[in-house]
Amino acid sequence: MKLVKTINELRNVIANWRSEGKTVGLVPTMGWFHLGHLSLMKMAKGKADKVVVSLFINPMQFGQGEDLAAYPYDLSRDMHLAEKEGVDLLFAPSSEEMYPEGFQTSITVKNLSQGLCGASRPVHFAGVATVVAKLFNMVQPDLAIFGKKDFQQLAVIRQMVKDLNFNIEILGHPLVREDDGLAMSSRNSYLNQEERRNARCLYRAITSVREKVSGEGTEPSVAQLTDEVTRMINATSGCAVEYVEVVDKETLQKSATINRNSIIVLAVKINGRVRLIDNALLYPEENDS
Amino acid sequence: MKLVKTINELRNVIANWRSEGKTVGLVPTMGWFHLGHLSLMKMAKGKADKVVVSLFINPMQFGQGEDLAAYPYDLSRDMHLAEKEGVDLLFAPSSEEMYPEGFQTSITVKNLSQGLCGASRPVHFAGVATVVAKLFNMVQPDLAIFGKKDFQQLAVIRQMVKDLNFNIEILGHPLVREDDGLAMSSRNSYLNQEERRNARCLYRAITSVREKVSGEGTEPSVAQLTDEVTRMINATSGCAVEYVEVVDKETLQKSATINRNSIIVLAVKINGRVRLIDNALLYPEENDS
Repeated sequence: MKLVKTINELRNVIANWRSEGKTVGLVPTMGWFHLGHLSLMKMAKGKADKVVVSLFINPMQFGQGEDLAAYPYDLSRDMHLAEKEGVDLLFAPSSEEMYPEGFQTSITVKNLSQGLCGASRPVHFAGVATVVAKLFNMVQPDLAIFGKKDFQQLAVIRQMVKDLNFNIEILGHPLVREDDGLAMSSRNSYLNQEERRNARCLYRAITSVREKVSGEGTEPSVAQLTDEVTRMINATSGCAVEYVEVVDKETLQKSATINRNSIIVLAVKINGRVRLIDNALLYPEENDS
Repeated sequence: MKLVKTINELRNVIANWRSEGKTVGLVPTMGWFHLGHLSLMKMAKGKADKVVVSLFINPMQFGQGEDLAAYPYDLSRDMHLAEKEGVDLLFAPSSEEMYPEGFQTSITVKNLSQGLCGASRPVHFAGVATVVAKLFNMVQPDLAIFGKKDFQQLAVIRQMVKDLNFNIEILGHPLVREDDGLAMSSRNSYLNQEERRNARCLYRAITSVREKVSGEGTEPSVAQLTDEVTRMINATSGCAVEYVEVVDKETLQKSATINRNSIIVLAVKINGRVRLIDNALLYPEENDS
């Protein structure tokens, strides 16, 4: 596996691959790899001849007071993990390489960036869209893979790709969970033992309402489901719901009634300090979370 | 010359050229071709194997109350002119093809879009940047050519290309003038005979201050030059200065003193109805306007 830190070297390696007729898959990440990331890399290996993983803790997608400085980072750990997955190139640029002096461009995907995580993180999705567009232009991949845990991010990127006519296939990979159901996230590393145990309430609440939806009897209303999730989570020590909604998995518009495209999406603050998100289709599909 | 109206067909033609190893140059336009446009096409022919000209009156770059509905359009006239220049493909999409329902993405190049034309046209440069990014992703050209008449547009696009890492060479073509000095513009077609005659005051004023700069004696101050241009133009029947500034030709920052990179930039309203812009280096260079 090649470790590359500059855009010029990245372009050179990829131009060589292209001259040999290779296809290229991209997996954008902020590092501190867990099984979720590794499963994206595996998926990319199955879909493209060459796999590029980017590792960049993107300052533009963090707001004031968020966890930019605390975000876990260990390049040699991540190199080792990516290499084991057969990744061909790990691109780990500096902030100066990505945002040289005078940088002033941003991409806004208006409607999809509002609400849900966008409500408490107003600059987040412009930062995501902008850095992803930069990576797309540097790598010019045939396909790029994103995790479905960040459901709103995936929707924003799909819309940007459509609106700006990027010639890139966007694939979503199902959310990967720990054995006890907690959605894998680099931010889980912020949790102490007790918080980690309490954080199981997110999946417990999701499982509970999914059982109600697929169970016997009248179908519960959207309000009943979100109320139940809110109640279960807020009853757990240290856990406070930021939002719980049932939305269409593509448009992110609130569902009036539950259907096959409805996902329940939620954000929870643990002890006011660690922000976790989760989501699930209310009617589970095979191969999906 | 091929006339293409859909993005799919555009991509197919270009993919064929690419498979033959051809380089591609792009000239984005809003049509109603004049010698300025035709000289961009000539330049592209000299720089790339295949030349794509886009013709799209981009609604996103027109503000409320601007001349979107009045903008001149004659596809068969323009096809004939482009064909004579040896253009390989004219891309003339519909608004629905460019902005399908649900479109919601925009690109902002913050600092360079403020001031000058951006002051009176607050949505203009986001519209320009967005449509140009779309065309770049559709065509994926090796190079793209823009006229220097739209000096702020050129600066915005160069910055966007740098910030978003488009792998495209941006070339500026010198401003082309009518015999009496009026900068060529599709909007000159809005002028009646008297207005057309009065519009010569823009170039007359520019010529006057350039002579002062290159002449004998103490160098005039920036304020003296802009005052003189304002006075000359406002003294002409029906002509009113919107702005006159002396700025660095790349950063568009106001020049404190005049140097080789200083350009004088101006916008003038004719009878409150037709808005014309012009610019020139204060120290003329060969091959430049």
